[in-house]
Amino acid sequence: MSSTEHRTERDLLGERAIPQQAYYGIHTLRAVENFPISGTPIGRNADLVAALATVKQAAAVANRQLGLLEPELADAIIAACQEIRDGRLHGEFVVDMIQGGAGTSTNMNANEVIANRALELLGQPRGAYKVLHPNEHVNLGQSTNDVYPTALRLAAHAGALRLLAAMEQLRRSFGAKADEFADVLKMGRTQLQDAVPMTLGQEFRTYAVMLADDQARLAEAAALLGEINLGATAIGTGINSHPEYARLVCEALSQLSGVALTTAPDLIAATQDVGAFVQLSGVLKRAALKLSKICNDLRLLSSGPRAGLGEISLPSMQAGSSIMPGKVNPVIPEVVNQIAFEVLGNDVTISFAAEGGQLQLNAFEPIIAYALFNSIAHLDAGCRVLASRCVDGIVANVDHLQAQVDNSIGLVTALNPFIGYEAATRLAQDALASGRGVRQLVLERDLLSPAELDRVLQPASLTQPRPVAAV
Amino acid sequence: MSSTEHRTERDLLGERAIPQQAYYGIHTLRAVENFPISGTPIGRNADLVAALATVKQAAAVANRQLGLLEPELADAIIAACQEIRDGRLHGEFVVDMIQGGAGTSTNMNANEVIANRALELLGQPRGAYKVLHPNEHVNLGQSTNDVYPTALRLAAHAGALRLLAAMEQLRRSFGAKADEFADVLKMGRTQLQDAVPMTLGQEFRTYAVMLADDQARLAEAAALLGEINLGATAIGTGINSHPEYARLVCEALSQLSGVALTTAPDLIAATQDVGAFVQLSGVLKRAALKLSKICNDLRLLSSGPRAGLGEISLPSMQAGSSIMPGKVNPVIPEVVNQIAFEVLGNDVTISFAAEGGQLQLNAFEPIIAYALFNSIAHLDAGCRVLASRCVDGIVANVDHLQAQVDNSIGLVTALNPFIGYEAATRLAQDALASGRGVRQLVLERDLLSPAELDRVLQPASLTQPRPVAAV
Amino acid sequence: MSSTEHRTERDLLGERAIPQQAYYGIHTLRAVENFPISGTPIGRNADLVAALATVKQAAAVANRQLGLLEPELADAIIAACQEIRDGRLHGEFVVDMIQGGAGTSTNMNANEVIANRALELLGQPRGAYKVLHPNEHVNLGQSTNDVYPTALRLAAHAGALRLLAAMEQLRRSFGAKADEFADVLKMGRTQLQDAVPMTLGQEFRTYAVMLADDQARLAEAAALLGEINLGATAIGTGINSHPEYARLVCEALSQLSGVALTTAPDLIAATQDVGAFVQLSGVLKRAALKLSKICNDLRLLSSGPRAGLGEISLPSMQAGSSIMPGKVNPVIPEVVNQIAFEVLGNDVTISFAAEGGQLQLNAFEPIIAYALFNSIAHLDAGCRVLASRCVDGIVANVDHLQAQVDNSIGLVTALNPFIGYEAATRLAQDALASGRGVRQLVLERDLLSPAELDRVLQPASLTQPRPVAAV
Amino acid sequence: MSSTEHRTERDLLGERAIPQQAYYGIHTLRAVENFPISGTPIGRNADLVAALATVKQAAAVANRQLGLLEPELADAIIAACQEIRDGRLHGEFVVDMIQGGAGTSTNMNANEVIANRALELLGQPRGAYKVLHPNEHVNLGQSTNDVYPTALRLAAHAGALRLLAAMEQLRRSFGAKADEFADVLKMGRTQLQDAVPMTLGQEFRTYAVMLADDQARLAEAAALLGEINLGATAIGTGINSHPEYARLVCEALSQLSGVALTTAPDLIAATQDVGAFVQLSGVLKRAALKLSKICNDLRLLSSGPRAGLGEISLPSMQAGSSIMPGKVNPVIPEVVNQIAFEVLGNDVTISFAAEGGQLQLNAFEPIIAYALFNSIAHLDAGCRVLASRCVDGIVANVDHLQAQVDNSIGLVTALNPFIGYEAATRLAQDALASGRGVRQLVLERDLLSPAELDRVLQPASLTQPRPVAAV
Repeated sequence: MSSTEHRTERDLLGERAIPQQAYYGIHTLRAVENFPISGTPIGRNADLVAALATVKQAAAVANRQLGLLEPELADAIIAACQEIRDGRLHGEFVVDMIQGGAGTSTNMNANEVIANRALELLGQPRGAYKVLHPNEHVNLGQSTNDVYPTALRLAAHAGALRLLAAMEQLRRSFGAKADEFADVLKMGRTQLQDAVPMTLGQEFRTYAVMLADDQARLAEAAALLGEINLGATAIGTGINSHPEYARLVCEALSQLSGVALTTAPDLIAATQDVGAFVQLSGVLKRAALKLSKICNDLRLLSSGPRAGLGEISLPSMQAGSSIMPGKVNPVIPEVVNQIAFEVLGNDVTISFAAEGGQLQLNAFEPIIAYALFNSIAHLDAGCRVLASRCVDGIVANVDHLQAQVDNSIGLVTALNPFIGYEAATRLAQDALASGRGVRQLVLERDLLSPAELDRVLQPASLTQPRPVAAV
Repeated sequence: MSSTEHRTERDLLGERAIPQQAYYGIHTLRAVENFPISGTPIGRNADLVAALATVKQAAAVANRQLGLLEPELADAIIAACQEIRDGRLHGEFVVDMIQGGAGTSTNMNANEVIANRALELLGQPRGAYKVLHPNEHVNLGQSTNDVYPTALRLAAHAGALRLLAAMEQLRRSFGAKADEFADVLKMGRTQLQDAVPMTLGQEFRTYAVMLADDQARLAEAAALLGEINLGATAIGTGINSHPEYARLVCEALSQLSGVALTTAPDLIAATQDVGAFVQLSGVLKRAALKLSKICNDLRLLSSGPRAGLGEISLPSMQAGSSIMPGKVNPVIPEVVNQIAFEVLGNDVTISFAAEGGQLQLNAFEPIIAYALFNSIAHLDAGCRVLASRCVDGIVANVDHLQAQVDNSIGLVTALNPFIGYEAATRLAQDALASGRGVRQLVLERDLLSPAELDRVLQPASLTQPRPVAAV
Repeated sequence: MSSTEHRTERDLLGERAIPQQAYYGIHTLRAVENFPISGTPIGRNADLVAALATVKQAAAVANRQLGLLEPELADAIIAACQEIRDGRLHGEFVVDMIQGGAGTSTNMNANEVIANRALELLGQPRGAYKVLHPNEHVNLGQSTNDVYPTALRLAAHAGALRLLAAMEQLRRSFGAKADEFADVLKMGRTQLQDAVPMTLGQEFRTYAVMLADDQARLAEAAALLGEINLGATAIGTGINSHPEYARLVCEALSQLSGVALTTAPDLIAATQDVGAFVQLSGVLKRAALKLSKICNDLRLLSSGPRAGLGEISLPSMQAGSSIMPGKVNPVIPEVVNQIAFEVLGNDVTISFAAEGGQLQLNAFEPIIAYALFNSIAHLDAGCRVLASRCVDGIVANVDHLQAQVDNSIGLVTALNPFIGYEAATRLAQDALASGRGVRQLVLERDLLSPAELDRVLQPASLTQPRPVAAV
Repeated sequence: MSSTEHRTERDLLGERAIPQQAYYGIHTLRAVENFPISGTPIGRNADLVAALATVKQAAAVANRQLGLLEPELADAIIAACQEIRDGRLHGEFVVDMIQGGAGTSTNMNANEVIANRALELLGQPRGAYKVLHPNEHVNLGQSTNDVYPTALRLAAHAGALRLLAAMEQLRRSFGAKADEFADVLKMGRTQLQDAVPMTLGQEFRTYAVMLADDQARLAEAAALLGEINLGATAIGTGINSHPEYARLVCEALSQLSGVALTTAPDLIAATQDVGAFVQLSGVLKRAALKLSKICNDLRLLSSGPRAGLGEISLPSMQAGSSIMPGKVNPVIPEVVNQIAFEVLGNDVTISFAAEGGQLQLNAFEPIIAYALFNSIAHLDAGCRVLASRCVDGIVANVDHLQAQVDNSIGLVTALNPFIGYEAATRLAQDALASGRGVRQLVLERDLLSPAELDRVLQPASLTQPRPVAAV
């Protein structure tokens, strides 16, 4: 078939020529023309396209059960949807991710592609909508306003699961390093000032623990995505939908997707409410803040090699400078910092979009989706590269760390219970002014015996609670 | 006692004269001088002051149990703390809410006030720190880095409970209106365009439902505040704390505060992690977005009186204009919108502060507290005024609403299953172009009989799912 | 040449095989592997690639003038750069836009592509770096830390100019509508409540005026981009650069780019400072807020068709609903709203990245660039579609607008000077309660004569200041 | 007069008893009851109260000139306004800063206080509004919608001027330190990795230079505040205002305030446009980002005292820890960081409020004012404490800094032009691996003679451009 062949389709605005080989139709064409914004078509988001196809498939299943759709048509639709779920035809989803119309164009794009592929499976030419119509059959009992948010929820859920796995990989990497560094003594710091000793293992354990917390929060937020509004149709009143449809389509979709879904108890609220996306983005923000903080720490601890803290060495991933020979930079933490900053901005974008909902619908779900899917995907990539290209290769500079503890004024804190806060304060001031060591001054002033001092300052005493009376 | 009398206190920087009648001491004085920022002293936050006193009280209880604090001193501290919890001495908490030092000055302020009041109870003059010392006795086994975040959590928890009650009041107000308006038919709208009919009761029910969701999320976030890090001391290693202290102080604090508290499993992580505050702020943001959306709706639905939607009337609360006589404005929704905007900004402030944590501590908890407490308190006030000064007095303009439904082109959607999407589209276009009614055109064109049409367009059919085959 | 042929390159980490046909080299390869984040290569940003090539071209020109680069090599570099500026080889810029390393990989990618193309022009094989080296010749006298921000500034400047043109198109569209609607009387509104009359032309003029303000601010912000730091090299001290280099390269770059550039007076400050990007983003935020407000207004004014304000009609661009026949939505304003929300989020991303700069460099310029270029490009697209696909086709619903004025209670404001604020207030309340007209009540109560009333209420009096004494 | 005496006032909602001694009236009372939000009355903002009084004073002057206000009444109003400008009666401005009604209650509060004080000056009792009425005389020719934004602009302008002075103080402090440290050599860093040498003076000069840039931007933004909309009245059409009023009141206000003011060319645009506030907040954000970055640097450079960078010492301002004796923290930079975070959040609050404007007015100016004034005041305080309590007392740890340079691998960059990038890379790697010095290795390998090496590595060569051929 020549690429110059066209079929004619019409909508309420008039007629348009559609390339005959296109599976999409006139509604999609108009949307492509109306929204030349980001250059990122929805087809680039495999989760979203698959989710749309799964929703349409479930609707066809339910409508066939209800006797509202002839089995032959239903089966063709179901088969077309399955192909899309299997990864085909994604290139036909050509509408820009950033679009007006509250997702209508995304839904229409799906309806048209599915209809034309189903027609093809039925031996019909594309555009033979008298036989099988994008709106009257593929979209039967549906509205953009229930299909689109449901598809977004499914897609976000899939993305969240992958992200959870990526976070788990990173958590394990930190956990492994925590084990490896369990006996490496170092100075802890508060407010960037030397505080009291701890182990490098304790420091890395912290990162694993905080990630686990974030994973728990993310799992909770992902679970909230399972409440869908299929059956709501236009505004949630369920106009034009069969009373049994909501239940049946939810069952079908749960089964097809493998996700535990429930129908929202109030479909009108569910149709306008984007709270689940806001909640999810809030948790992504939380994870991003934590990741950024961790990467800041890694960059700080690995600063140097000679004029920095130099406590750990990150693996070298690439030459660091076009002018400074031998310079190696913490490029992996840096990219994760930047992903975090993007996620933080996306959260604000989502906030504006959520605030902008009016009456029975939030027309700004497309930008919520755009921002949310970017946050999820980039955090996912960030966790994985951070684990595999940075954390797994971190080396401790053990001698330097021990020397800092030995030389530290912060040791006086451990003497507090024995010599008092005010005496310890004077000791610290004297050590700082003279450049001398705490241990040395204590012995010189006969504040504790060498044996007592050793007991007080042994690592096990310094890095965990202990009965003070034991000295 | 003359106000010009002073006592002398000293710290590592030297001596300072303190007004004899002041319960606070030299550390507080320096902080007041260092942080002349917002003009809002911590004493204005009753929750925070009470929480600090409760933490100090619990610490004294635990230290007495452990035999680390003489009973006489412990009892004096406990009594002083109880007075503060009862609302006394709040005026002595004079350090600015916006402060450097990671909360140290807040903790020191509490230590000094409690010490001096306890000294007074012991018949000692203020400043007699040899007898009872702010750091060595009141702060025994503690560090700012465990006391301060624990107090913030307790105070935020108290605020969250009050906010939940305020949200519940508002939810009930919306619920009552939903009942009242259950039979008031109106046009639903998507993208500000006329969509399909619904009841005003359904519209108001939505607000109640969304608030209930937010309440559930807020309760979850509040519960996360119950994990405390007392016993962590400086960086979480528990240096200088008794091995039994963490358990005992948590028990004492749970009992004194009436909040179910647990000690964080990893105290090093807990000491640096502000995730619970980020999570709480994220949920407040979510609630703020929803409230702002609801207030936008209320302002829109009450727009007019003649050139607006005019669907509902808000109660008049004050004259609306200094120049336009008789103008009444939606001032209560407007103030709630603005509270929401503040909360959204506070969430970004908290994000920056959370991201800025370094190594074993986040030095920026004071601004997190400042922003978080403002968010909680203002949302609380906003929910209450919205309920009592706006929602409770809303009146529906029933006739106008019914007329809009009768006149609506959106009715064609209900005809969709009977005459098809394309025929319905033509009908809608003709109605719009001619300015005529859908009902009229249907009958004129003999598309449905009058009886059929009545059945299709009865309110119960329009506002909920129905078996299409019934026509 | 077979695609399986490879050449070997080496860096400080070791050797790697590079596809023989690739113009990029080992540094680029490692960066591609390190940063599998957004899937958007820098090559997709034509402005940035062209800007990089122009900077490299200018450097070669300057180095040739200084005698630091052999003319033959310089000429080959210059020619290769020109090809890239002409649109070739963009596909060789394969590093992800979101990258660690402060832009080093972008600079390296440019150095390698230019070197290999220059080698080709010299009749040498790719990888013959002994002849012409990416770092030693293409990057001569440069550092990522001066090349990268300079290229970002040039690219942002180019984007800003295009955006200014798009805003001008939109401003003219609003201006034309303002002229067209100059005599259409309507009710003005404050706080969504009916206020006093104005013309629809005045309302649309406002949008043109506000855009013009934003254009002025954007032009100022764009001008600030003209201050570059070439010659700064690594940290701004100009190490390894010839004392005349900064001046010469700035001259060459000004001439090649056609942009009026100056060398920053303090190169150390200029190297770490991202203030110009923050400023630009702040102005884009301002423009986005204004555009979003305008689109909110357009959506509000066109709400309906029957149960909304219905003051104007936007051109229909696509069918609005998959379920509601005949529904047409304001899809173009909606997409512009969403672009605005993205820009607002990007501004926060940029803020975080700017805040994260440390000491002599901000390592987070890549995400600043990513966010900034998206903001610029999407605003640009948004202004153009808003002008051509929405504003140009807006139609006023003149009769409806006039009827609202005639029926309005807001007319009483015009009576204020004649009957007093308190009498006017009573009049307004009576009109509202009775559903009657202000004009009618005034005459009935003999407050003004018919002739006086006509004079007071004539459009020219209502919509501009007038001497009150004239009545 | 007994505090229980009351007078009766009435508005469109009915009658209320007002404490006889109160200067405010019924509109204020209702607003106080309606907005129990932040507990911060407008009276606490002296700039705003003074600005309101100055606007009212200018209006009275203009109205007297136009013959619209009897001289006796005008003079009483003018005198009352002057008293307020002189600092009296601020306690009568009792409406909450966070208020609905688009500032109407603030304007009403001013009208009532001025009217009652003017009545008093005329020998009349408070509440004798028949003689002199808050709306008909004090507010003559005005509307909240022109008075309130004009007062906000004047108040913001005053705040901006003070902030500029505070920034100048800080700039000079950095400049003085730059001079003091002009000869202190240290290692520069990029991406927290050792880069090439510079002087500490250069580092501090950078802070002064960046502040100067921010001052320039702030001055520009402040100048934009000088465009006012007095004469706009309700929506900008100037209804009920005399054609000469706008010009005369602008002249009077310019003269009274000492600020160069102009009347906006399009008053309808000016009345709804909050762009000048957005622009100002954007510049404050920029300054905040820079200040936060500078404070991050100061905290980093002063980290230690032994396990940190330890390059500089900040003056000790207070004891740093309740548990760690002798610990001194960077409390002043920390509080400035937090102020910056607040400003960044406020910018988002302002963005939401700006986006929420609708049609002829932005009803959310009160929260814009609240956020903006807090940003200005807190930044002001922050700059002053940073200068006087931190920067002025910074000491350089000269020996440590020099030792780091001598020991640095970054010196190889300076050798680049002499031995080439690849040889220099090998040298750097060898130095790092062996723990030896660059200087040592160069001599050992005979890459340069000792004399050449000295010349290459002399401070003046390292910290500025130099002709490479000179070696």
